Amino acid sequence: MTLDHIFHPRSIAVVGASAGPWNAVTQLFLDTLIKFEYKGEIYPINPKFEEVSGLKAYPNVKDVPGPVDHVICMIPAPATRQLLEDCVAKGVKTVHLYTSGFAETGEEDRARLQDELVSIARSGGIRILGPNCMGIYCPRSGISYCADFPKDAGTVGFIAQSGSYSILVTRGASARGVRFSKVVSYGNASDINETDLLEYLAHDRETEVIAAYIEGTRDGKRLRKVLTEAAAKKPVIIIKKGGTAAGSRGALSHTGALAGNDAVWEALLRQTGAIRVEDFEEMIDLMVTFQFFPLPRGRKVAVVGLGGGASVRASDECERGGLTLPPAPEALVTEIEPIIPVAGSMLRNPFDMGNYRNDWAAALKLIDGWAEPDMFLWQLAPEIEPFMKSIYREFCRDARGRILEAFRGLQKPTAVVVHGVEAGYGLETLQIVKTMCAEHKMPFYPSVYRAARAISRYMDYHSWRGDQ
Amino acid sequence: MTLDHIFHPRSIAVVGASAGPWNAVTQLFLDTLIKFEYKGEIYPINPKFEEVSGLKAYPNVKDVPGPVDHVICMIPAPATRQLLEDCVAKGVKTVHLYTSGFAETGEEDRARLQDELVSIARSGGIRILGPNCMGIYCPRSGISYCADFPKDAGTVGFIAQSGSYSILVTRGASARGVRFSKVVSYGNASDINETDLLEYLAHDRETEVIAAYIEGTRDGKRLRKVLTEAAAKKPVIIIKKGGTAAGSRGALSHTGALAGNDAVWEALLRQTGAIRVEDFEEMIDLMVTFQFFPLPRGRKVAVVGLGGGASVRASDECERGGLTLPPAPEALVTEIEPIIPVAGSMLRNPFDMGNYRNDWAAALKLIDGWAEPDMFLWQLAPEIEPFMKSIYREFCRDARGRILEAFRGLQKPTAVVVHGVEAGYGLETLQIVKTMCAEHKMPFYPSVYRAARAISRYMDYHSWRGDQ
Repeated sequence: MTLDHIFHPRSIAVVGASAGPWNAVTQLFLDTLIKFEYKGEIYPINPKFEEVSGLKAYPNVKDVPGPVDHVICMIPAPATRQLLEDCVAKGVKTVHLYTSGFAETGEEDRARLQDELVSIARSGGIRILGPNCMGIYCPRSGISYCADFPKDAGTVGFIAQSGSYSILVTRGASARGVRFSKVVSYGNASDINETDLLEYLAHDRETEVIAAYIEGTRDGKRLRKVLTEAAAKKPVIIIKKGGTAAGSRGALSHTGALAGNDAVWEALLRQTGAIRVEDFEEMIDLMVTFQFFPLPRGRKVAVVGLGGGASVRASDECERGGLTLPPAPEALVTEIEPIIPVAGSMLRNPFDMGNYRNDWAAALKLIDGWAEPDMFLWQLAPEIEPFMKSIYREFCRDARGRILEAFRGLQKPTAVVVHGVEAGYGLETLQIVKTMCAEHKMPFYPSVYRAARAISRYMDYHSWRGDQ
Repeated sequence: MTLDHIFHPRSIAVVGASAGPWNAVTQLFLDTLIKFEYKGEIYPINPKFEEVSGLKAYPNVKDVPGPVDHVICMIPAPATRQLLEDCVAKGVKTVHLYTSGFAETGEEDRARLQDELVSIARSGGIRILGPNCMGIYCPRSGISYCADFPKDAGTVGFIAQSGSYSILVTRGASARGVRFSKVVSYGNASDINETDLLEYLAHDRETEVIAAYIEGTRDGKRLRKVLTEAAAKKPVIIIKKGGTAAGSRGALSHTGALAGNDAVWEALLRQTGAIRVEDFEEMIDLMVTFQFFPLPRGRKVAVVGLGGGASVRASDECERGGLTLPPAPEALVTEIEPIIPVAGSMLRNPFDMGNYRNDWAAALKLIDGWAEPDMFLWQLAPEIEPFMKSIYREFCRDARGRILEAFRGLQKPTAVVVHGVEAGYGLETLQIVKTMCAEHKMPFYPSVYRAARAISRYMDYHSWRGDQ
């Protein structure tokens, strides 16, 4: 039985939706469906209200006049057994339990209740998502649990055992222009688990890149098989957490997951061809790279930017991340010198272009003509700019826009980096540049090391596939 | 001869100050002195203007009626030889050459010009700072080159071969509440070099913590001796850059520095007792720790916060950074359960406190009474918050303020962390929390790993000193 229908329900009942003053969870699940213009019927379920968020409310899911495909459950755990029985009676197909307080508590009676819900569901042909999770974000269907997620769809499919991570990754990647086919937060995995979802995404035509945050599994053998098949078709990027003693204790009390030995996981993931990443930052970097960075021929990079210390740091970080900087040939330096005066600049690769008044477009074109490098990195370190008056800020912003334009016209693959920032002006600039890049679908990274490492791992993946 | 007078000149001439429309460098050096209410006389020097920034201008430094102690030079390199001769004639004590285009270009005639300037200066008893540097920030004397640096002074002394790094570190650390005794950007080190400055800071009564960004040295033996003496007196935190092939090429064309073999530097720094850090982020983390974090008895930490995934990640990052999380005893869990309901929370250390409506103050007090942990970390992951309406944002902000207040009343040392953020709301929250912490002189870190690593290295330093 395919999971496809969980992403395309004809109608959704939101059980526990409230018109009360503190209705934060209602905002999450009901108001977001309305905002995303979900096309099917939406039914708030709550015996205390006639109407919630402008929609007619029903006391019980069984009272809804039409069919209910999907149920989002926000009521406390003790009331869920009755709800599942009602759902069976109503002919519901999937139940997403946002509700927590089950196996993850480590308490026996609560774990037993979770098992009972699964039994009831199975008896009625219902699939359960969760409990203890955020559920589904599927922009094409108008389903979301965060009002600020993008309404437009893309080709990245992401599943997360942690609701937090589902939000962190989706928000962070979206801010850099990535768009998603489906995102699923699956929590305790009492029924639908990581392997079911990975198998689905491997076959899903809307998904070109798969990503997953996993705390544990109950069937390592099947997971290995599914991951191997998936990784042969598309890149699969994995975060596996809970490897340390404290992390494993955390995972157990978070989603009831058996985190397992980290070395075993490391070997399993390596054998399947999945790309294991450190954490969500690296996951986002790889999503950006797979989506926006054309495959370069090799790992040699030309680094351009402003600032001596920043250029030196960028060079070190490139090499640490797996890229190399070939030294600029004398002939090239001689060509550039009339454009970028030697005082206050560095023209050896790294290239410090001196200042924003110099003609970057002309110099970049000359460097683009140099055959040896395979790609460009533009490193920006806004916090080194000592001029804080608004006239200068505006000048810098305009200059950056013009350079980005010139960058887009180069032959070699290009990426934009804003160095790690620690204070206010840097953060402001980072946001502006990131947004400009996202709009143009240009790969943006928040540190040179992260850029170099992501590009390097992207090339590792294609080498492994035999693509070059 | 002590360098003390470079921080306390009676008068400063700013050579090349301009009243023209594009006078960014004048803003840097002249307008900032005015803004910082520098108490001595300020003399703009420029034959083209009668007045600059409201001050009478003179055509030549020799035309100034009173004595000139310190000169800031912003005119192009070819004009500097004449200026140095004029300065000798005038009896100037120190010249800071912001001007670049000397040895760092790798061009022989420009390197020779630099040597000539040093010869002229020595003949007249002048000390040179630079060339190719930002110079001096000494808030007690009202001297600064960035208008946004704090006006109030502190006890951290920082020297940087890179002007960018001097700005990056000063801004980043200031935003987290750190204040400085003296900051010096010393560039090409043609005369005053890293060792002179480190020797000065080692003896400086206003300086309790020393930090340095170094690209190279010309006298490793003396540097070793001075660093050993300095590190025996106060913590000395060092960034050494230019270690890779490309970085070394960069350092050479940046400040003309001989970066040298990284393994040699590693050994040298280790032997002296200096604390070598990766980059400026870790340097700022250690400044914050030395300034604000009381020395804990051991490395066991209690981690509190919101979010399952965020708690698991925090646990992993603590252990990776050198701290451990003891599991919470059953008796403590039983005590906390009436305050923090078990559904939606995790009470095993890491502690996920469920939500902001629970009574954190009471629960924190109970955890504070548990003898085993040596310190508290509060981990905030604002980007996991799915509620984006302003009423909820305000509630969160107020709740965080109350928790910070409760945190300040605990017995154990405490630190506040906002997890790495990747999107807009997270950055906004990070700024708010960072500012709150800076105001209260509470240690703040922008990732759990960075917090754990800095605290761990801080404890290493005190173990090495035999303090515990």
